[in-house]
Amino acid sequence: METTTRRQQTPVSAPPAAPLADRLRSIRALTRALVAPLSDADATIQSMADASPAKWHLAHTTWFFETFILRDHLPEYRLFDAEWPFLFNSYYEAEGPRHARPMRGMLSRPSLDDVLAYRAHVDAHLERLPDRPELAALIELGLNHEQQHQELLLTDIKHALSLNPLAPAYASLSPFSIEPTGAMDWECHEGGRHRIGHDGTGFAFDNEGPAHDVLIEPFALARRLVTNREWAEFIADGGYRNPALWLSDGWAWINAEAIRAPLYWQDNAAFTLAGLQPLQPDAPVAHVSFYEADAFATWAGHRLPTEFEWEAAAAAHDSAGGTQLDEAVGVHPAGSPSLFGDCWQWTRSAYLPYPRFRPAAGAVGEYNGKFMSGQCILKGASCATPRGHSRATYRNFFPPEKRWQFTGVRLAKDI
Amino acid sequence: METTTRRQQTPVSAPPAAPLADRLRSIRALTRALVAPLSDADATIQSMADASPAKWHLAHTTWFFETFILRDHLPEYRLFDAEWPFLFNSYYEAEGPRHARPMRGMLSRPSLDDVLAYRAHVDAHLERLPDRPELAALIELGLNHEQQHQELLLTDIKHALSLNPLAPAYASLSPFSIEPTGAMDWECHEGGRHRIGHDGTGFAFDNEGPAHDVLIEPFALARRLVTNREWAEFIADGGYRNPALWLSDGWAWINAEAIRAPLYWQDNAAFTLAGLQPLQPDAPVAHVSFYEADAFATWAGHRLPTEFEWEAAAAAHDSAGGTQLDEAVGVHPAGSPSLFGDCWQWTRSAYLPYPRFRPAAGAVGEYNGKFMSGQCILKGASCATPRGHSRATYRNFFPPEKRWQFTGVRLAKDI
Amino acid sequence: METTTRRQQTPVSAPPAAPLADRLRSIRALTRALVAPLSDADATIQSMADASPAKWHLAHTTWFFETFILRDHLPEYRLFDAEWPFLFNSYYEAEGPRHARPMRGMLSRPSLDDVLAYRAHVDAHLERLPDRPELAALIELGLNHEQQHQELLLTDIKHALSLNPLAPAYASLSPFSIEPTGAMDWECHEGGRHRIGHDGTGFAFDNEGPAHDVLIEPFALARRLVTNREWAEFIADGGYRNPALWLSDGWAWINAEAIRAPLYWQDNAAFTLAGLQPLQPDAPVAHVSFYEADAFATWAGHRLPTEFEWEAAAAAHDSAGGTQLDEAVGVHPAGSPSLFGDCWQWTRSAYLPYPRFRPAAGAVGEYNGKFMSGQCILKGASCATPRGHSRATYRNFFPPEKRWQFTGVRLAKDI
Amino acid sequence: METTTRRQQTPVSAPPAAPLADRLRSIRALTRALVAPLSDADATIQSMADASPAKWHLAHTTWFFETFILRDHLPEYRLFDAEWPFLFNSYYEAEGPRHARPMRGMLSRPSLDDVLAYRAHVDAHLERLPDRPELAALIELGLNHEQQHQELLLTDIKHALSLNPLAPAYASLSPFSIEPTGAMDWECHEGGRHRIGHDGTGFAFDNEGPAHDVLIEPFALARRLVTNREWAEFIADGGYRNPALWLSDGWAWINAEAIRAPLYWQDNAAFTLAGLQPLQPDAPVAHVSFYEADAFATWAGHRLPTEFEWEAAAAAHDSAGGTQLDEAVGVHPAGSPSLFGDCWQWTRSAYLPYPRFRPAAGAVGEYNGKFMSGQCILKGASCATPRGHSRATYRNFFPPEKRWQFTGVRLAKDI
Repeated sequence: METTTRRQQTPVSAPPAAPLADRLRSIRALTRALVAPLSDADATIQSMADASPAKWHLAHTTWFFETFILRDHLPEYRLFDAEWPFLFNSYYEAEGPRHARPMRGMLSRPSLDDVLAYRAHVDAHLERLPDRPELAALIELGLNHEQQHQELLLTDIKHALSLNPLAPAYASLSPFSIEPTGAMDWECHEGGRHRIGHDGTGFAFDNEGPAHDVLIEPFALARRLVTNREWAEFIADGGYRNPALWLSDGWAWINAEAIRAPLYWQDNAAFTLAGLQPLQPDAPVAHVSFYEADAFATWAGHRLPTEFEWEAAAAAHDSAGGTQLDEAVGVHPAGSPSLFGDCWQWTRSAYLPYPRFRPAAGAVGEYNGKFMSGQCILKGASCATPRGHSRATYRNFFPPEKRWQFTGVRLAKDI
Repeated sequence: METTTRRQQTPVSAPPAAPLADRLRSIRALTRALVAPLSDADATIQSMADASPAKWHLAHTTWFFETFILRDHLPEYRLFDAEWPFLFNSYYEAEGPRHARPMRGMLSRPSLDDVLAYRAHVDAHLERLPDRPELAALIELGLNHEQQHQELLLTDIKHALSLNPLAPAYASLSPFSIEPTGAMDWECHEGGRHRIGHDGTGFAFDNEGPAHDVLIEPFALARRLVTNREWAEFIADGGYRNPALWLSDGWAWINAEAIRAPLYWQDNAAFTLAGLQPLQPDAPVAHVSFYEADAFATWAGHRLPTEFEWEAAAAAHDSAGGTQLDEAVGVHPAGSPSLFGDCWQWTRSAYLPYPRFRPAAGAVGEYNGKFMSGQCILKGASCATPRGHSRATYRNFFPPEKRWQFTGVRLAKDI
Repeated sequence: METTTRRQQTPVSAPPAAPLADRLRSIRALTRALVAPLSDADATIQSMADASPAKWHLAHTTWFFETFILRDHLPEYRLFDAEWPFLFNSYYEAEGPRHARPMRGMLSRPSLDDVLAYRAHVDAHLERLPDRPELAALIELGLNHEQQHQELLLTDIKHALSLNPLAPAYASLSPFSIEPTGAMDWECHEGGRHRIGHDGTGFAFDNEGPAHDVLIEPFALARRLVTNREWAEFIADGGYRNPALWLSDGWAWINAEAIRAPLYWQDNAAFTLAGLQPLQPDAPVAHVSFYEADAFATWAGHRLPTEFEWEAAAAAHDSAGGTQLDEAVGVHPAGSPSLFGDCWQWTRSAYLPYPRFRPAAGAVGEYNGKFMSGQCILKGASCATPRGHSRATYRNFFPPEKRWQFTGVRLAKDI
Repeated sequence: METTTRRQQTPVSAPPAAPLADRLRSIRALTRALVAPLSDADATIQSMADASPAKWHLAHTTWFFETFILRDHLPEYRLFDAEWPFLFNSYYEAEGPRHARPMRGMLSRPSLDDVLAYRAHVDAHLERLPDRPELAALIELGLNHEQQHQELLLTDIKHALSLNPLAPAYASLSPFSIEPTGAMDWECHEGGRHRIGHDGTGFAFDNEGPAHDVLIEPFALARRLVTNREWAEFIADGGYRNPALWLSDGWAWINAEAIRAPLYWQDNAAFTLAGLQPLQPDAPVAHVSFYEADAFATWAGHRLPTEFEWEAAAAAHDSAGGTQLDEAVGVHPAGSPSLFGDCWQWTRSAYLPYPRFRPAAGAVGEYNGKFMSGQCILKGASCATPRGHSRATYRNFFPPEKRWQFTGVRLAKDI
């Protein structure tokens, strides 16, 4: 799986600075490229309620453009199929009733070809939109939404294929090299008053604002992610059997679910988008839950960072660096000195509104605010995050027991 | 949906009396024909643990021939794929571990084409078998097994497609006419000592024997099945709200599951293999559970027959009559004067071993005996039963709450 | 636990032949005696939905007399408390809504003393009833109903106390001796036409009739129950790990519930009504499910009897023999040559209506008929069955996975 | 239920400033007084896994003193019963295995009298302790722990009695008057840098520290709690049917559980510790979940406060004010101008560690830290909180869907 030289990455996507119409074409094209390795059957199955079929991602991202842009702003537009909005609305209550999420895997029809025709139809109409600022804002939102689903498409199909005893590959792995890692090295921060949240320049999701100041105590942040080797040591030391290391909910969860290793680990191998592959000791550990991340940090004598600490530290880092998604290949964490990339990083912060946060009006306002309970903040980006999508103020969030995203651990400590 | 003339049925299958090799070819061909309307995605999805993907039925029936005949009796035979037996063994403990039943819908790979290649491979080897009596017996068992899966394939895909809000059709309906029905008419039987079970001539499953005598009281059996019109009257009369009509388990079940009509009913229509179609008042009601059948009989002032009464009455009937499966079209109950066909008929008999019953030795012995608890006997045949498969001694069985088979009601009464 | 001489049993109950008024007093008195060892708290707790608190049994049996006799037939009678019928109706839909069964353990009020006052009140009014035949029949039904609850009271409190880690005793054990057992000995029956069911002389439940003839093949029935020693051999031989021995539902059940021994076994001891006691190798095994009984029989190369075989054999036995309940002490299977007593015996028969069975009209008709699905017939009587309550035609019934009754195994075989 | 004059409260407890030995006696005495109205059966039952039997609270608080003080620090001490620690350890993993929480309601033995004897035994030994500072700290912890269980004892028995259809009373209500409420009035705060957390003077739980500064934006806090009248308006306005008002998890929860009103509401009445009582429109609403509190605040156009806002505002308030627990009577929210009392107040803050928080070493360190996920902070105190137990820095916490505590709503808004 290792190669000696790291290939130059040739992004398929237009960079964030590119004209919007170019970005629209390139981002939509990347989604299509991501399903190219999949059969109609691959694109249809749903492995759990949390995940969606690849076909559904294709259609739902298209429904978003069709509904909030074409239907609402292009008077002559006719719906591609009047029955499909019921199928491809995800959770927008304001948009009416919708198909039950756990039943998405029953949609053998429409076929993958039908859904690709839907995409072509909507893409063709998007080309005809007038050049108006409020439409540009909606398109930008639609593109960022689509990038999120690109990542989900990859993590969802990885999960689905992992349940097939034949361990089929999505694609061959992106070539990558893994550098040997040494002892943990720390970057110190002196704390104090820090500006947090998005200041209003460029696109951001509503949950990233309003910008505001917070007080941070001095802390240090690890210069790299926790590796598979270190995780194996945690296991060998009885990490999953010692209740003193675990949050109470986490201890209940690992015992109820018989969790004894990261998701996808099988002996000395792990299921990847390229099928079963040997574990790379120096690669960042991925597919761990918040509970596991927290227990590991306790075992290591450290802790997880808060989202504010992480964001304060990120000011000095390039959010487009590290291992992120550039093209439709099998992606996998490889490790890098960047604060971003490889794995989303669990923080010790709950997903809560910033002071004076107000959701946007209308259905689009359901995007983030209503999920602000029971979830944890993750920062950074993963190998499946389209490069250019994340930033220092980005607030990713998942429930503490979820593991099917590329989620890993960066340690912090008080100084 | 009605047509004025009933088309002559041209059976694809060779009749039971045909040479075994011809029957092998024609029955295997019918299975292939049954999946012709399905896409790879259609053939992959699994709607519930009780049902299996169409692709799985194709492969499992082939695994049966590969395992019990080719592997065991054709020395030079090599498995088509050494990993597939794990996937396509259904429940034969003696054949080793196997894929969990509720996960069959995750098998986007192998593809439908791969599975059809598997069938072709096994069919080609079956042509090379020597002409030995013990092989003939196993082939006969394999063919009867395959016919059972033909019926399940149709009922399983019907269930899966019914969960798609688009109500897609499997195929256009088999043309059929529905005769107006009048008041219930009864055929009387004087009771006495009756020979029950299979006497050993021709193929039968092990659960149909040993033949033995039973005593039967005088009784009458309805000359036709209960119709949709009668069922609508039962509903209108509060049948689903009156606990006095129901077995205690049935009352708990309809309330826990919010059952208020037969499966697939939606207002005045019903989902069929041809999509949503208007309810036919004179057609036999289908897709009711044993609990519903029993409650209806109580409401009607009658009862369900025992399996012995039904079998005694069947002596005078042609088991190949009535609405049964002849070719790969959408099937649907139409009604007929035959005791067989349209819908399997719930009896008041539990599925228990006959006196001196002993399962066969080896894995094939797991076929029937181990299911002899918690299930009810059904007699007759349905519109999805391959014509020629059933007979008077046939003992079909399902748990009392299952409804996705074509299951209906024939009333009985004491005289 | 063993004593050298078996004490003469002095029945508290008046024998079935005694005048009804005497039997009423003595049976009601035995129920009171059975709760004498219990505190208010003991009598309040409910260990599972299947079981009821002792206090509830006291009140429910009294409600039965109050409702169906005093309220309906004693014009001046006033309900002891107008709110209590809601609490103490068990399952009679015709008697209106009622307290949810799994919530019976929440009734810390009324207190045990309040309930005993209720019993005294109803008993006093029962003394004033006119001497009318239809009342005698209802009283007889009420007494037989109360005897059933005497047995349930003992098995329910045993289950509840077993969940207390202190393993508290209900009472000291009834003194008993256990005879050494030898190899299994068989009693042969030639089969033929047998009269089954109750002929109408003396009390019987409605499910015991109508009497009718059945045909039975020649068979042999074991002269004693399966012992703890034999069960330990079954375990040692891997009986709980070999799927070939089990019905499919049973195999799923033991694995889902991690069943590896009879209920109440802990190493070489078992929880009894007298607390934890050493296992007696020669005593009949108790607290096994139908699934376990069937698997054991298969392992032993034999089978369970049908209810008809058992009843045919019982013609030659005294139904008041063997280890049955005579007084309020801790009861426990000890073994005896009687066909009756020690443990109820699982049969291979499902609980179904006899030919021409019709439930009685009104609420009392809900007594038996509505449970005729999903349950198995047990014959005989147990150490907790009030002596005189059972008879050859008695049809006890429980679901196949239940184990908290004194249920054991008598083997049968074809000859 | 209303009375015209509010009776002078005569606290049973010694005030926090009293000598420790006096406080020990008075707090332990209040616990005994709280169970005086309960029978052995009342004190035994457990209504849900979240709640514990009153008897268990009595024993567990005693176990805490026995284990961490007598056993560890009084050399001659012998355990009252060597088997009881297994029963009465709550969740301290370091103290070894323990009885499963949902099974606490099976402990009909030991009896209430036995448990009171255990308390007397331990109390007698506590009198003999030497006067050492580290023991004083443990006693103080034990007393604060016991006060928490006093509140739980009341809320748990309220829940248990509420499930009895007879709606029995725990005790007569504490006499109280309810003042008419007017429009919502607001107290403004200018925000800025605030000191948060406990500074080390007097007792506090570990989760209240370390003290640290936070930045707060200007805000206003309501001068009173939301009332039953306002909640009824929320219901009448369709509050429970409008998804736009709810967090996504909350919307799923109210629909799954069919929640349409606060816990214990029945038409215009509510179940109280004094049985069913008419709803008091001007009394604070109680027994609402975080989800409901948040939805109400959204409906009202406001929001919940953060824990920091609440604590900053509390600097000006007496934490011993308002409706809190003084003696063993039925308690109920009555309303008061105090920031404390009546109901615990849900905040918008997740229960997370303060910067540089470290749990204490040993079993006592399991007290708080391990619950820091998935829970919400509540501030203030309730009518069931022993007066003197709470303070401005106190961090109560419960999962967002729990309602059986006296939990209510104080609104906040941005200014």
